[in-house]
Formats: sequence, C-alpha cells, structure tokens
Amino acid sequence: MEILSTKVAIIGSGPAGLLLGQLLYKAGIEHIIIEQRSSEYVAARIRAGILEQVSVDLLREAGVDQHLNEMGLPHHGIEILSNGEKHRIDLSALTQGKEVTVYGQTEVTKDLMQAREEAELLSFYEANDVKVHEFYNAPYVTFHKNGVEYRVNCDFIAGCDGYHGVCRATVPQDKIKTFEKVYPFGWLGILADVPPVSDELIYVQSERGFALCSMRSNTRSRYYLQVPLTDKVEEWSDERFWDELKNRLDPESQKNLIIGPSIEKSIAPLRSFVTEPMRFGKLFLAGDAAHIVPPTGAKGLNLAASDIAYLSSALIEYYLKGSEQGIDDYSEKCLKRVWKAERFSWWMTHLLHRFETESDFDIKIKQAELAYVLGSEAGQTTLAENYVGLPYEIKKFDDLKQAS
Amino acid sequence: MEILSTKVAIIGSGPAGLLLGQLLYKAGIEHIIIEQRSSEYVAARIRAGILEQVSVDLLREAGVDQHLNEMGLPHHGIEILSNGEKHRIDLSALTQGKEVTVYGQTEVTKDLMQAREEAELLSFYEANDVKVHEFYNAPYVTFHKNGVEYRVNCDFIAGCDGYHGVCRATVPQDKIKTFEKVYPFGWLGILADVPPVSDELIYVQSERGFALCSMRSNTRSRYYLQVPLTDKVEEWSDERFWDELKNRLDPESQKNLIIGPSIEKSIAPLRSFVTEPMRFGKLFLAGDAAHIVPPTGAKGLNLAASDIAYLSSALIEYYLKGSEQGIDDYSEKCLKRVWKAERFSWWMTHLLHRFETESDFDIKIKQAELAYVLGSEAGQTTLAENYVGLPYEIKKFDDLKQAS
Repeated sequence: MEILSTKVAIIGSGPAGLLLGQLLYKAGIEHIIIEQRSSEYVAARIRAGILEQVSVDLLREAGVDQHLNEMGLPHHGIEILSNGEKHRIDLSALTQGKEVTVYGQTEVTKDLMQAREEAELLSFYEANDVKVHEFYNAPYVTFHKNGVEYRVNCDFIAGCDGYHGVCRATVPQDKIKTFEKVYPFGWLGILADVPPVSDELIYVQSERGFALCSMRSNTRSRYYLQVPLTDKVEEWSDERFWDELKNRLDPESQKNLIIGPSIEKSIAPLRSFVTEPMRFGKLFLAGDAAHIVPPTGAKGLNLAASDIAYLSSALIEYYLKGSEQGIDDYSEKCLKRVWKAERFSWWMTHLLHRFETESDFDIKIKQAELAYVLGSEAGQTTLAENYVGLPYEIKKFDDLKQAS
Repeated sequence: MEILSTKVAIIGSGPAGLLLGQLLYKAGIEHIIIEQRSSEYVAARIRAGILEQVSVDLLREAGVDQHLNEMGLPHHGIEILSNGEKHRIDLSALTQGKEVTVYGQTEVTKDLMQAREEAELLSFYEANDVKVHEFYNAPYVTFHKNGVEYRVNCDFIAGCDGYHGVCRATVPQDKIKTFEKVYPFGWLGILADVPPVSDELIYVQSERGFALCSMRSNTRSRYYLQVPLTDKVEEWSDERFWDELKNRLDPESQKNLIIGPSIEKSIAPLRSFVTEPMRFGKLFLAGDAAHIVPPTGAKGLNLAASDIAYLSSALIEYYLKGSEQGIDDYSEKCLKRVWKAERFSWWMTHLLHRFETESDFDIKIKQAELAYVLGSEAGQTTLAENYVGLPYEIKKFDDLKQAS
C-alpha cells in the first residue's frame, strides 16, 4: 500500500474540485485530487453555460481567466417569450450594471485542468473504489489504481464528487437530512454548430411546454425542449427536434432560427435536492454533492463556485490565520445562499413549464404571475437580481493573506 | 304585478351594489337596488377592513367620505412575523408614498346606506325570489315583496349579489368558465373591543400556522387564526383563542397583547374563485359575484371597488357620451386586475400558511422565499405594491362629464 499525506484531499475533479484545488494551490496549501473517472471523460462532459459575476471573479482569483476573457460572451439581458410575446429583462439596468457571462462549463473544466497540469499538481484519475474514512476524527481516503492500493492521510476531505458521489453516501444517516423534489418532465438538449437564433438567451413559456434557446459561443448553439420523462432520445430525430422547437417560438425567432446537425443530444431529468448540513466534522460537501437545482435558473455551476468560494476562504483562513471561524460557518453560509438559489430555480421552473397535474386555476395564476413580473419593475428586478446572482459576503483572499 | 322601469337594475346591496348606485346617482343615472336580505342584516355583516388608495378615492368620488375621513386610520406599513422575527414592510417608502386605510367594510356599507337614504334613492330589501331575465336582449328583473309581484324593466343589470347570488347562476353554462381553488383550512376570526396589539397589522407565519393581528379602530381589534376546516366555533372559547394566538406571536407582542371578551367569533373558509367573462350581454357581474379571494392579501373589498370603478365609468360613458367602449372593455379590464389580485392573494396565503400536504422541501422553499422577499428591496416592493393596490387606468369622471 502506498501511503500519501496531504492537507486537503479533494474527491472529484469536476469544476468544484478543480477550482478548489487551484485556489488552494494559489494560497500554497497542499492538496490532492482523486477522481474515479478518466480525465478525458471529465473534460468532455457537457453541462451548464452561464457564469454569474461572482463565478467569473473567482476564476480570475484562481488565475484561470485567460481563455474566459477571450471567449466568454458578456450578456446584459435575457428574453422571455410568453404567449407569443417577447419581453426583455434588462439584467444590467435592473442590477446596477451586473451581467452574466456565457462560457461553457466544459471550457471551465478544460481551463482548470490545463492550469493544474501546468502547475504539475497531483491528481489521481480513474481511481477505483474510492472511500472516505474517519472524517469526524483523523480523516483519510483510500482507493485503488492500476492494481496499487492507496491511502491518503489528510486534515480535511472536500467532497466535490457530485450527486452520485461517495462522500455524501458515507455520512451516517442520522447526521444528515435531505430535501428533494423530482419534476415530472425532462429537458431534451441539443448542441449544434450553428449561430444562435438571438444574441441573448430566450426562455420560452408556451402551451406546448418550455423551451430554451441558449448558446456556448457565437457559432455554437444549445437548445432545450421540455419533454415527458418517458421520451427516449432515439425518438427525437434532429428534424423532429427543430420542428418542435419552431412550434414553441414566435414568428420572428422561427424566421431567424438556423438549424444544423446535432453534435450532442440527450435528455436530462430535473431535480431539486439539498443536503443539510454541508459539513460533517472534517468532511465538507460542495457543489452537486450537496445540492442539485433544475437548470432553468442557470444556478448549478454558480452554486458550486460559491460553495468553493466559502470553502477555499475557510481553509485559507485556517491554514494562514489559524482560525476555525470559516470552517465553523461554512455549512450555514452556504445553505443560506443555496436555498435562495433553490427557491429561484424552483420558481423559474414552476413558472415556465407545463405540469400535467396543474388545474386551470393553477395555469391562470402562473399566467398572472408572469404578467405581473414582466409588467412591474420590482417584479423584473426580483428575476434579474437572482439571475445575475445574489450578493454574498466573503473575506477577500488578499485580506486573508495580509492578515496572516 | 307592479311594473317599474329604470336604466340600471342593481342586484345586491353590499358595498359593490351600494357604491355603484351612489356613483350612478351622482352622474344622474336612474337605477334601483334589489336585495333579498333585510337592510339590518346587510348593515351588520362583518367583513374586510383594509382600503387601498383607489378604493378611498372612489368613496370620495361618490361623496361618502365624511365618516371615513374622520375615522379611517392611514397605515404606512405592515409587519411580517416569521420564525419569531418581525420584519416591517414600509409600504409608503416602497411605493412612492402610497398607503392603505384601515376602515371596516361594515362602516363603508353603513355610510353608503345612509347616503342612499338621504338621497331618497329606491331600494327593495327583503325581495324574494329575485330573478334576472333576457339579459342578452331586453333585460328585466322580477321579484316578490310583501305579497306583491314586481317586474323591473331596465337597460342593464349589475350583478352585485355575491358568490351565492342569482346573477351568475342564471348565466347559461356554455357562456361561462369558472376557476376555483379551495384551501384546506379556515380563518377563525374574533372581534373584541380592546386596543390592537400594535399600531400596524402583523401577519404571522409560524410553525403552528398563520395568524393575523388586525384592527378596525384604535379601540377595536380583529384577530385571526388559521384553523382546520373541521373545527367548530363552539370548540374555541375566548380563552383558547387568546392562548393559541399568543403561542403564534413573538415575546414582545405576547407582552403587549390586551385580551377581552369577543363580540363576534366565526370561522370562514378560504377560497380563490374567478368567473370569465364578467359581462354577458347586458348583465355585468361585479365583486364577489364574479370572484373571491382568500382574505390574506386584503383584496376582496378593493377588487369589488375596482370593478365598480370600471362599471360606473362604463355606464356613465354610455349614457353621457353615447359610447359603448367602456361596456365592451369592462370584462377584460376587470379580469386583468382581478387575476393579479388573485395571484397576490394566493401567494400571500401560500407563503404564510401551513399546508398539511406540503413536503419538507416545500416548507424550506417557502422559508427561502420569505427570507428572500424580506431581505431584498425588490422583493419587498413586489409585496408592497400589490398590497397598496396595483395601479389601474380609468377615465376620470370629471373628464367624462365634461366631454358629454
């Protein structure tokens, strides 16, 4: 058995784990990343694409913003198409100049992996049988790789291993409470190398169901359709997808829509999920390991980033200042922001999708809510300020370092 | 059979019918009010107590504001008590100086009845077997009183006869669509001649259920408790009521609460209900005849007032300018405002009450929503601007009269 020793063992090499690694590295804190998948698999996953300002700031802080600066598309508004009528939410005007950045999660992951490689930081990909141990006391991680058994002794474990990961699953049942809502439909997503139908995202509420016109760049589009969970991807030819998308759009968008062959197509279920607390002794959960949001509000990646902002700051505070304050506050601080993002994601999902179980009254109330929100400056502002990301307080890294 | 003739036959002598009568009288338009109950019964009904600015303005327009000016209490804010913590919503600061007025519906009714008596306007109380006829063509109303059969020929019928009234019930099924939601709890209300616990209303969200500390004046309080629909008034002694109310309040309010014998006690079910359309040929529905809101948002009386603002303006436009525009627009204009008020009332009810069927996730989402709304200026503004009443456009009566 190989025995290694580090300060922080990070389980999972998605954006949360990679970002944490990079921030710890910048602060001179030793860590190891352990990931059960291959690096190729991790780099190829197609996920979210909208970054809040605070997420962009954090990537800057981590020093992995070069590609983002070149390729990220700042967006100052979104469109909501409801009953055939388009309404623009002027995000920047409603939030004192804030914006979001269109930049694929795939790119974020690649940038972070590249930075990691350049810094020659230690990662174990294709680690088998990963297990976390003794995190209420003297934590360590075990796994196998290429026939070798490994044990990593550490001060802390960061569980960044997603919804299906081992970290949350290892927490004793009586120490954890989970909250969940599963939605009775999925999102059929398509990726295609065609210019997007519009400069801004279009969220579509229609009688035929929700649709979203999104993008990854000016030449790569990402479109989604609300579909029954019973649908199979094979039932959706490209042609059928484009036809149905057109059916949910307004005439202008129908005219502007450029179609092309899909380079990826999949159906994802929608889920709301939260774990309380998010810290168990010396084990921290972050990102999808602790919470899932439906993608409607574009919050998943951003919540992972804000968890990591709190966690990296707490660990830096611990190692550089010798204070456990950040560690003690981690769970509560995260959850406050998590629940607000869960609320917003639930609300966007609820408002824009068709539910088979809803009564005529429910539908009318939703229409009235949308009409109110779109017609009121305060209503629009509630949408905008959540969409660009609610503010969160965090000690500046520079302050932490100076104080040390 | 006595045959009478008038321009507008108003069915129902609640605030909607009385206010319409007064506004028509001021404009010199002949009308008759027909009510199945006695005038004593009508005058004694205890209902809502919060007037929006637009409702106050309308009572001024009708010339029945003398008592209101003397006794109405302008309120510039409300308190929301959630998880033991009080948050003030500064209605006026959030809505450019708007306010609401605490003034009982009972008082509004009395004022209007007195004005009607002074003007010697014709009303039939205790009218039996009221029926409305031929409203797609040549409308008339029939009823019995003291053994005499009456027939009232008219140009229009105003159905102001409430949820259980005859007007809506007479509309052919295929001409009308209704939307309804019944809530799985009721409000146990108590009226007592004790000073209110606070200068402002307190809306209480607690684990034990919703409560509301309201008032009719500085010496008469109105308190409500969310109770199961299966509860009977007889099960709620005054003592039990005050004890349970205290259990839902914060320590400061518990200390300030002055209790006393109830002078009225009742349990009311909560319902959301909307009729579409609100005009059927020459029959108009207004107020509770067309829509019901749960009382949480204090919108019932105010919606009746805004219906009457539209209806009186439409009728004045018709008789003084010879234009049917207001009549043709009546239903659509009303419903636009009705659905927004329905949405707000549903939302306040949903947010502040306990529902037995809600999951832990639902409860958490509601807590997050309340925390967000109370912590965001935009969120607070959405509550405030709906509470004081969304703006509505109506031709000024003076303009209508001048143009004629």
